[in-house]
Amino acid sequence: MTQPLRLGIAGLGTVGVGVVRIVQRHADLLAARTGREIVISAISARSQRDRGVRLSSYAWENDPVALAVRDDVDVFVELMGGSEGPAKSAIEAAIASGKDVVTANKALLALHGQSLATAAEAKGVTIRYEAAVAGGIPVIKALTEGLVGNEITRVMGVMNGTCNYILTRMQDAGLDYQTVFAECEKLGYLEADPTLDVGGIDAGHKLAILVSLAFGTQIDFEALTIEGIERISVEDIEQAADMGYRVKLLGVAQKTGRGIDARMTPCLVPDTSPLGQLPGATNMVVLEGDSVGKIVLRGAGAGEGPTASAVMSDICDLARGVRLPVFGIPAAKLAPAAKGVSAPPAAWYLRMKLVDKPGALAKIAAVLGDAGISIDRMRQYGHDEQDAPVLIVTHKASRDALDLAIAAMAGTGVLSSDPVAIRIEDV
Amino acid sequence: MTQPLRLGIAGLGTVGVGVVRIVQRHADLLAARTGREIVISAISARSQRDRGVRLSSYAWENDPVALAVRDDVDVFVELMGGSEGPAKSAIEAAIASGKDVVTANKALLALHGQSLATAAEAKGVTIRYEAAVAGGIPVIKALTEGLVGNEITRVMGVMNGTCNYILTRMQDAGLDYQTVFAECEKLGYLEADPTLDVGGIDAGHKLAILVSLAFGTQIDFEALTIEGIERISVEDIEQAADMGYRVKLLGVAQKTGRGIDARMTPCLVPDTSPLGQLPGATNMVVLEGDSVGKIVLRGAGAGEGPTASAVMSDICDLARGVRLPVFGIPAAKLAPAAKGVSAPPAAWYLRMKLVDKPGALAKIAAVLGDAGISIDRMRQYGHDEQDAPVLIVTHKASRDALDLAIAAMAGTGVLSSDPVAIRIEDV
Repeated sequence: MTQPLRLGIAGLGTVGVGVVRIVQRHADLLAARTGREIVISAISARSQRDRGVRLSSYAWENDPVALAVRDDVDVFVELMGGSEGPAKSAIEAAIASGKDVVTANKALLALHGQSLATAAEAKGVTIRYEAAVAGGIPVIKALTEGLVGNEITRVMGVMNGTCNYILTRMQDAGLDYQTVFAECEKLGYLEADPTLDVGGIDAGHKLAILVSLAFGTQIDFEALTIEGIERISVEDIEQAADMGYRVKLLGVAQKTGRGIDARMTPCLVPDTSPLGQLPGATNMVVLEGDSVGKIVLRGAGAGEGPTASAVMSDICDLARGVRLPVFGIPAAKLAPAAKGVSAPPAAWYLRMKLVDKPGALAKIAAVLGDAGISIDRMRQYGHDEQDAPVLIVTHKASRDALDLAIAAMAGTGVLSSDPVAIRIEDV
Repeated sequence: MTQPLRLGIAGLGTVGVGVVRIVQRHADLLAARTGREIVISAISARSQRDRGVRLSSYAWENDPVALAVRDDVDVFVELMGGSEGPAKSAIEAAIASGKDVVTANKALLALHGQSLATAAEAKGVTIRYEAAVAGGIPVIKALTEGLVGNEITRVMGVMNGTCNYILTRMQDAGLDYQTVFAECEKLGYLEADPTLDVGGIDAGHKLAILVSLAFGTQIDFEALTIEGIERISVEDIEQAADMGYRVKLLGVAQKTGRGIDARMTPCLVPDTSPLGQLPGATNMVVLEGDSVGKIVLRGAGAGEGPTASAVMSDICDLARGVRLPVFGIPAAKLAPAAKGVSAPPAAWYLRMKLVDKPGALAKIAAVLGDAGISIDRMRQYGHDEQDAPVLIVTHKASRDALDLAIAAMAGTGVLSSDPVAIRIEDV
């Protein structure tokens, strides 16, 4: 048997502790499977408090940078999080001293992945990050290895469990967004800055990683269109359900004639599709390739066990000597990301309230017709004293055409609320 | 860039042609992703007929064994099929001459995997077979690499598209088994020996592979319990649907106190579960690990593109220098498979016809009670002149207890048809 693989683990939150537990519990299994012992040399965290796991046999470093460059560390495992600060400095230090890196840090990769990959490849080391996307689901491996023989045509994913929990809970309990958001806050389901979750940013970071891997482009978070779930109302969820749709915060990335269309936005999907049937905090990624067709992967997107499982997958690959380019092909060969690529036309769900007088609906229909948008379904679903709520499902139209039509609607004088528009994605 | 990886491909059926097409179409992409050119040196097939793909630049061998040992072949790609004969001889010859092997041949692995793995590892080469299980779904990779940090607790799968197509079609069209079987024969959906499909043998071969990988045991097809779908009636499908279940040919393998329970049999699963919702010829594998929880993988289980995609995944791993033990851990360390391990108790669906006279149902209920089997639901669902059809769902009971009860039912004199029993699996 070759020399043990020696880990330095920085960050002992849920995931870090999970990794320590697996290394301790499954030492024999890991050695049998990788042909090497996997050991922890040193650890680092913000405090030395008791975490319910045996740590006394590992060297302790207060400074993650010091940990990253230790001679007795082969792989630096970064589980601190944060796109700047100590996580970034420590990873840079590890690379500079010729060590491979395993991280779960999607924000750091989304914002600095290209420069980190360039640095790593110049030093002949790599950065692995299976845990950064969709928790325990081995999606990075499926995409870069399992589907390596494919030109990837589309990637889709529900990759923020909190958002999917909120949307599912709104639907199941008939509660409005604010109420469910408050529940989540109380239950500790939200990040310290909840915008990272509900604003679609965390899921966007993950999508940025998948885009780079799928399409061979430099990672570029700024090139994505991001929209959160804050404006989704329980009324939209219920009306959509009534028409056979579910609302999901859905990431979509696909090739178009003008570059990669990549966005993380609320969409409607059919309730009979695997994405539509995804409950609660579960994650799902759909990969489409020119040979393989459509592969659907589903599992827990967060939590100690699933995330630590993904981190261990990277560690074991390194133990086995598997060392691929950070983003699937060498960083120098990645194409620049295209920005401002508009999404292909789609069907749209439109909800608005009209003043309750004759001809109001006709005016809205005329505006859509003038914009070249044809109507698939339209219904008025009961009204209160002065407003008539109206639902429209359009045939395929571009976002631009739709925005023009919505702007023109304002000029008709028959709107009594701003129209809500949600894209209906063909999944 | 290192030397090209040179393939010798034996077998130019659907999958072989698919592999040639990918190598030709994506030469640049494959080279970028693996860091090496992937080229075809030589091919072999039963005839030199036109297959709609350019083959003239490759050397031709009539004999696959001669192909397997050529000096200009690094990897022998076996896509002929068959558990004995030329496929086996050629793989053995390739190993003996120090070449890695990629195959899609589940039957060969299920029956001879242990001796082939031993031979390969003695020569320092490996055998890869992602395409042997669930077509394009990268399930071998997910299990052995993505979930490498887990003790696997259970594996489940619907892995024969033809069976799932037949069962789905019976339900959707209300047709009986014989009619749908005849349709499939006409459409060319069945193997030359259809028992391989509908008898559960093909799916059983795949399960045998997953069992070895999941639990570190020697591959042993004979250790599995196999039962086909031939005896599933449209009446059972419809009655099960009415109670919220779907009938699936389901592979299940899990640890029990007495060894690995591994079986490929028709089961009922809830229609709301991912397995229950799996339509038509699609495949699904569910992997459960102690850290990761439950991972669900879904995709096409057969066909040129999906299967060739899986073959290319193996080829590209070899191009990248990834060379793992054939069954995850070295063949010499695999534990012998345990045989005759009985499945844990389960709820059962029971359907029978009773003679239409007072007290008949009470007698059946008494027999179940005497066997220690309690009844969850029971209903009589309309009757013709002399028979009263009865459905029973039991609480959890062992197969042995159920078999004793069914034997005792025969002695009551109230049965007018043999009871049908289908296991209800907790998925």
